[in-house]
Amino acid sequence: MEFHYPNGRKYTPVKNDSKVEKQEKKWSYGKRGMTLEEDINESNQYYLERGIAAIHKKPTPVQIVQVDYPRRSAAVIKEAYFKQASTTDYNGVYKGKYIDFEAKETQNTSSFPFKNFHPHQIQHMKAVLQQKGICFVLLRFSATDEVYLIDAEDLLFFWGRMENGGRKSMTKSEISERGHLIKLGFQPRIDYIKIIDYVYDFI
Amino acid sequence: MEFHYPNGRKYTPVKNDSKVEKQEKKWSYGKRGMTLEEDINESNQYYLERGIAAIHKKPTPVQIVQVDYPRRSAAVIKEAYFKQASTTDYNGVYKGKYIDFEAKETQNTSSFPFKNFHPHQIQHMKAVLQQKGICFVLLRFSATDEVYLIDAEDLLFFWGRMENGGRKSMTKSEISERGHLIKLGFQPRIDYIKIIDYVYDFI
Repeated sequence: MEFHYPNGRKYTPVKNDSKVEKQEKKWSYGKRGMTLEEDINESNQYYLERGIAAIHKKPTPVQIVQVDYPRRSAAVIKEAYFKQASTTDYNGVYKGKYIDFEAKETQNTSSFPFKNFHPHQIQHMKAVLQQKGICFVLLRFSATDEVYLIDAEDLLFFWGRMENGGRKSMTKSEISERGHLIKLGFQPRIDYIKIIDYVYDFI
Repeated sequence: MEFHYPNGRKYTPVKNDSKVEKQEKKWSYGKRGMTLEEDINESNQYYLERGIAAIHKKPTPVQIVQVDYPRRSAAVIKEAYFKQASTTDYNGVYKGKYIDFEAKETQNTSSFPFKNFHPHQIQHMKAVLQQKGICFVLLRFSATDEVYLIDAEDLLFFWGRMENGGRKSMTKSEISERGHLIKLGFQPRIDYIKIIDYVYDFI
């Protein structure tokens, strides 16, 4: 009898072992949070093209170790590592205001675990709020495809509860009470600017 | 007699040819704009630590082609290429306002050539201005170590002149007339926030 150790995914027997490995690896890197990211990028593109807002995803931070410079062709990075981001992933400008947010998704259905956030990102959110920037997170529950906007102040409230020994997550009901459910559409797919208009005061 | 073709650097004879090549290559990648970037990063760190502003350099955009996932250790990027940035390098928040800028330096002493800017960056500056963000460039003349802040509106004026068949640069006198010379200091080294306070209206 073969043992198939659990990794959270359905086991599918395949003959070619090396292929399985390759696919698994691709999945673990490429798929995590990809759908939400794609939806947000598409929405940002929509906003940009229509002059609604100029918001971009920051490039993935990479620590470059070795670069080759072949003659007559582009420099090739031969060794590099993924670095921990020191800020959130998205920022930009809307009606003169600084907009800053992080996007996260979970397979959980009843709560959003804080292990999705790095202390660096929390620190950055505090700095943005101190500078009176608009700061929030977009949380996606993938099982139900619900996306909530939660203001950073609220997130920090629950993060503080954890730091004081409380639960290591926000419950779904806390999120639906404090957060704002974003109706998903076709274009833009995640119209978070509409929620910003509603949630935040603009001069 | 040996000829040493000028490349703007002092010639130092070295026995090992391959070593010379390696050093030159390192220099051409690592040194270009490094001093200005370091000075700005240090200034941003100064602002961040004192709660004055939260402004960061964006990570270098990299197109990742191949990643290895060795068992029990961090993912290694084995092949990647530098990508053209679609925005400027620095952005963040100051007193609720969106701040966005690009930093460039030149060895020229009499003008600042536009070849230092990519059309993508110009496009991005237009989008930021349209959203009423604060947008500018920090230009450094390395020979004299002068750093000017030039508002994006002014840069776009001269860029437009080029597009209409005019000169492909801003002259030094145009820059000193339209721009704002930033007094260099010890901490922060480039106190551009002080100039922002002076140049832009805040509510």
